[in-house]
Amino acid sequence: MDINEFVQLSLGTWRSQRSAHHLAFGHFEEVTSNIEIEALSIDDAPVIELCKINQIDPQLATSPFKMSWSGESDWDEEETMAGSTILVPIPEENNLAKGRLLREQGYAETIPSVGEYQIGEDGTFLLVTKYDRAAAEEKIWFATPNLRFRVSLIKTSNGSGVTTASFSSEIRSLKNSK
Amino acid sequence: MDINEFVQLSLGTWRSQRSAHHLAFGHFEEVTSNIEIEALSIDDAPVIELCKINQIDPQLATSPFKMSWSGESDWDEEETMAGSTILVPIPEENNLAKGRLLREQGYAETIPSVGEYQIGEDGTFLLVTKYDRAAAEEKIWFATPNLRFRVSLIKTSNGSGVTTASFSSEIRSLKNSK
Repeated sequence: MDINEFVQLSLGTWRSQRSAHHLAFGHFEEVTSNIEIEALSIDDAPVIELCKINQIDPQLATSPFKMSWSGESDWDEEETMAGSTILVPIPEENNLAKGRLLREQGYAETIPSVGEYQIGEDGTFLLVTKYDRAAAEEKIWFATPNLRFRVSLIKTSNGSGVTTASFSSEIRSLKNSK
Repeated sequence: MDINEFVQLSLGTWRSQRSAHHLAFGHFEEVTSNIEIEALSIDDAPVIELCKINQIDPQLATSPFKMSWSGESDWDEEETMAGSTILVPIPEENNLAKGRLLREQGYAETIPSVGEYQIGEDGTFLLVTKYDRAAAEEKIWFATPNLRFRVSLIKTSNGSGVTTASFSSEIRSLKNSK
């Protein structure tokens, strides 16, 4: 599995069940959401812009995509949980299974981020992103072409402690596909 | 990581937060439990008995252990969720990272089971168990020595569909350790 195959498999509309465990408090949070992942072109202006902000040659990008989501949390029903972000993989030279992932908006903090990705021999996509005050680790893998799982950890900035662990089951929504 | 190191790291008392996703219905279930994992000796009578039931030479066993749990589900507050089981690893000859795991009581059905385990290069313990009407897949890995995660899937018996996916965060309970 390389990054192009992984992005290709991920395209579409997904119905997500997400459970967050806030470890210090033993608190559960449940989120139901819809996620849409659309392919972009490496010629699209926002893709080129994101590369330039990160001082990276846009020619190095492959399989850029846009992710949009809208969801409901049981913790704060008033909260609107909708948004979208652009993601641009920058693989290592001669190794599509490893590289950097540019993100318009980060997961743990709402600023642009650059993560390090690696796809393991079992097809698991691992992304590690360091922020100023935290680090995020995401593992994503496919159980079937229409079912993927995601484990996300929010770590303290030195990476030694985990404050939140969450698990998502994402089922491809065949009806609502564009 | 081999099976002896994995069992050694797992010994102790753990406070578990478990979220189950019933995929067909989009239903969430939350379970809070305490799990205790105790070392047994390969000379203990129940260990020898479990080997004999499975027609396996008890001399092939390594690091047998007992797992006990008691928990509360938000789904059925009246339900008592307590039990214990004995587990006996039977590694392959010359490869402690791979083999069979004998279990007094299975996860998906309450009958004795034999699973196939394999510990990956990243230290993830993978256990696949086939039952008459279902198959179970468990992935367990340590984030730190005092924090482990577990993803459990219940699959249809031919292994193609997933009916339930659950995620557990298990924190070592340092106060209550025996």
